[in-house]
Amino acid sequence: MASALLTDLYELTMVDAYLTEGLHDEAAFSLFVRRLPARRNFLLACGLEDALAYLETLRFSSEELAWLESLRRFSPRLLDWLEHFRFTGDVHAVPEGTPVFAEEPLLEVVAPLPEAQLVETYLINQVHLQTLAASKAARVVEAAQGRPVVDFGVRRMHGVDAGLKVARAAHVAGVSATSNLLAGQRYGLPVAGTMAHSYVQAHGDELAAFRAYVRRFPETTLLVDTYDTLEGVRKVVELARELGPDFQVRAVRLDSGDLVSLAHSARWLLDAAGLERVQIFASGGLDEDEVARLLAHHAPIDAFGVGTAMGVSADVPALDMAYKLVEYAGHGRLKLSTGKVLLPGRKQVFREEEDGVARRDVLARHGEVLPGRPLLRQVMHVGRRMEDASPTLEEIRAHAREELGHLPLEVRQLEPVRPPYPVEVSPGLLAEREQVVAELREELHAP
Amino acid sequence: MASALLTDLYELTMVDAYLTEGLHDEAAFSLFVRRLPARRNFLLACGLEDALAYLETLRFSSEELAWLESLRRFSPRLLDWLEHFRFTGDVHAVPEGTPVFAEEPLLEVVAPLPEAQLVETYLINQVHLQTLAASKAARVVEAAQGRPVVDFGVRRMHGVDAGLKVARAAHVAGVSATSNLLAGQRYGLPVAGTMAHSYVQAHGDELAAFRAYVRRFPETTLLVDTYDTLEGVRKVVELARELGPDFQVRAVRLDSGDLVSLAHSARWLLDAAGLERVQIFASGGLDEDEVARLLAHHAPIDAFGVGTAMGVSADVPALDMAYKLVEYAGHGRLKLSTGKVLLPGRKQVFREEEDGVARRDVLARHGEVLPGRPLLRQVMHVGRRMEDASPTLEEIRAHAREELGHLPLEVRQLEPVRPPYPVEVSPGLLAEREQVVAELREELHAP
Repeated sequence: MASALLTDLYELTMVDAYLTEGLHDEAAFSLFVRRLPARRNFLLACGLEDALAYLETLRFSSEELAWLESLRRFSPRLLDWLEHFRFTGDVHAVPEGTPVFAEEPLLEVVAPLPEAQLVETYLINQVHLQTLAASKAARVVEAAQGRPVVDFGVRRMHGVDAGLKVARAAHVAGVSATSNLLAGQRYGLPVAGTMAHSYVQAHGDELAAFRAYVRRFPETTLLVDTYDTLEGVRKVVELARELGPDFQVRAVRLDSGDLVSLAHSARWLLDAAGLERVQIFASGGLDEDEVARLLAHHAPIDAFGVGTAMGVSADVPALDMAYKLVEYAGHGRLKLSTGKVLLPGRKQVFREEEDGVARRDVLARHGEVLPGRPLLRQVMHVGRRMEDASPTLEEIRAHAREELGHLPLEVRQLEPVRPPYPVEVSPGLLAEREQVVAELREELHAP
Repeated sequence: MASALLTDLYELTMVDAYLTEGLHDEAAFSLFVRRLPARRNFLLACGLEDALAYLETLRFSSEELAWLESLRRFSPRLLDWLEHFRFTGDVHAVPEGTPVFAEEPLLEVVAPLPEAQLVETYLINQVHLQTLAASKAARVVEAAQGRPVVDFGVRRMHGVDAGLKVARAAHVAGVSATSNLLAGQRYGLPVAGTMAHSYVQAHGDELAAFRAYVRRFPETTLLVDTYDTLEGVRKVVELARELGPDFQVRAVRLDSGDLVSLAHSARWLLDAAGLERVQIFASGGLDEDEVARLLAHHAPIDAFGVGTAMGVSADVPALDMAYKLVEYAGHGRLKLSTGKVLLPGRKQVFREEEDGVARRDVLARHGEVLPGRPLLRQVMHVGRRMEDASPTLEEIRAHAREELGHLPLEVRQLEPVRPPYPVEVSPGLLAEREQVVAELREELHAP
């Protein structure tokens, strides 16, 4: 579990001030993405499980409290409040694995103001990373057109926690396996991996390396590009002749060079040797665009290993995600800063479908009933997770597959869809915004 | 400490094969960046501390071993070896906070092949992230021209571990403080932060919010852009009149809008009210380019809060970092794959300076003595850290400041320097490469 100190200092100074002032009425905060990046037609919500686990278990240890006290910034009132902190609020959220669009809440926290404020940083940190990662991985999976995608990215993901969470998010999005053992252990993900170039290099002689490896792991994938890719494939053919019926190698892996032409040539060499059932696995700097390009050129590739680009969401390494106060003490709240006028109040999202295809979303006030399927539902009540709010990872993955299947084809594709998928605002919510803006302007210009 | 399972499956399958074959001679692996990204004139080495701590403490728990056994992939020999694993190798490295260039080893591991192979994934994971982060932060600090930069990025950094490590790397690179309390506690970093928009919104009335906050935290920074930035500044002026000598506010923070014109206007309003000592703090989607632009337009900004762009190194979210076998059993090793011919053998880097300014680096064979200052030194011997290989974080930060001061001005600047800083290869190393390539080609074409 994360330390309670994984937060921004200002969350604590604000809570200190709220407590001093007695501001502990109910507040609602909404976690959402302000704008979709140009290269994302949708986002795949992910990270709710960690968000809820955090809210259920967040405590301040005596060591953490002592350190906070040592800063000499906080009131005894705050330190005492933190010592007894338990999250007592409600949470409404869209299930993990649900496609969402700009301005749609991924989750809403309803709790006494100091509690709802305190948890901001960690909730964003986790939901942001995991939604970012699932959204990227969904594109790679889409590009692979049903071929397995294996996550190879842990070495260049941003630290240990990202290594874990991104592997999980990729699984939600449909990635087939991960090279990351810790993620395999923690989440029960299928793990995959065989050899690196260093293995071949340590032997010098490539055929000797293949021979030794296959003795230990007969049903393996051999990496063939250490010296010369097609020479490497010929060594595999040679090994097959040597071993006869004992040859059980499942695939060769190409990790560099012109993968279209190498895959064609490798396939030809293998087929000519009667090794039709040896598959071709491609890796090496791949992303969704490159996977799509390879398949558009009919490269006979059976599976893809994708690393860094998916692991750090290289083209879009961050989302414009915010956690905003939308209601306090029963009044809608918003911000008027340049270019950032928001929708006040708690919300619901209705997704309207025709023949199983999503046609538009409508952002509505919480409690409004409109046509379509409501996406947010309550997952936590008074600090406790609802009984049906603990889907298994496989259920989440199945949910993602089904929900992605409801998206219009052009929204799932890699290229930006124009016009974007329509997200409209209900008349009720628009009216509420006008009212809140009017009240606010009156307050601001009052003498 | 990281779990021993934070690794790629193939490290373990390769080690299993090495053990089966009896390949446990000494190997040398080199960790380096193949190419500098277009927008990086140099990288700032970071992450060695975590790499060494990992090598000193890496153990496999019985729970981890039981899980590995449950995969039914590994030999009893491997599981037994893992159970008794202790890293017994040597490490040579450039100190944290040293600028490095493409192909220059950040660290070299010299150990029995299975040991050196096993640790690959975690070493890259940590050195990659921290070098990436320090390199980005150094650019932001450079752009700020001596003004303090505060790290605000934890909420959109990739997970908890990145939150910690990036804050540390930013400190190494010269960032002044962080909003991240956990990083503050763990590393003793100065922490900073006061209020978010939600604080002002919860009050509705902005002046009431400022008044309440200042009562609790008199020497604070007030966020003035929730509704209208210059109106917010006028409220601060009003509060100063109310409080008279009790007014101790240190700064106003501008977080949106046209920061050049808002900073000028805010400065004018404050000065006109006799509040010359109230500083202007700017934040909101800043990166090094925007900081440079603001200062080029003479925006009267005293300090910067920089978040996401620095926290995820948004323009360059990953480096082409590799950990390559360069020597086995006394023989230089390399890879010939397309576009990836490497330099074999262990190395040293000599940095030649004139009048305190670095003029060129020379990549040499380990043991060569050439003009200039050698950058790599031994930091671990037989699994134990050398006595002088535990600098404090403040020493590392001071080292970075000094080393950055030795770089040519054009290399420190934000724009790509053409031609790039020269990194040459010593005749000794070139000769070794030719010899290894010749040997390898002979082996490859032997009958």
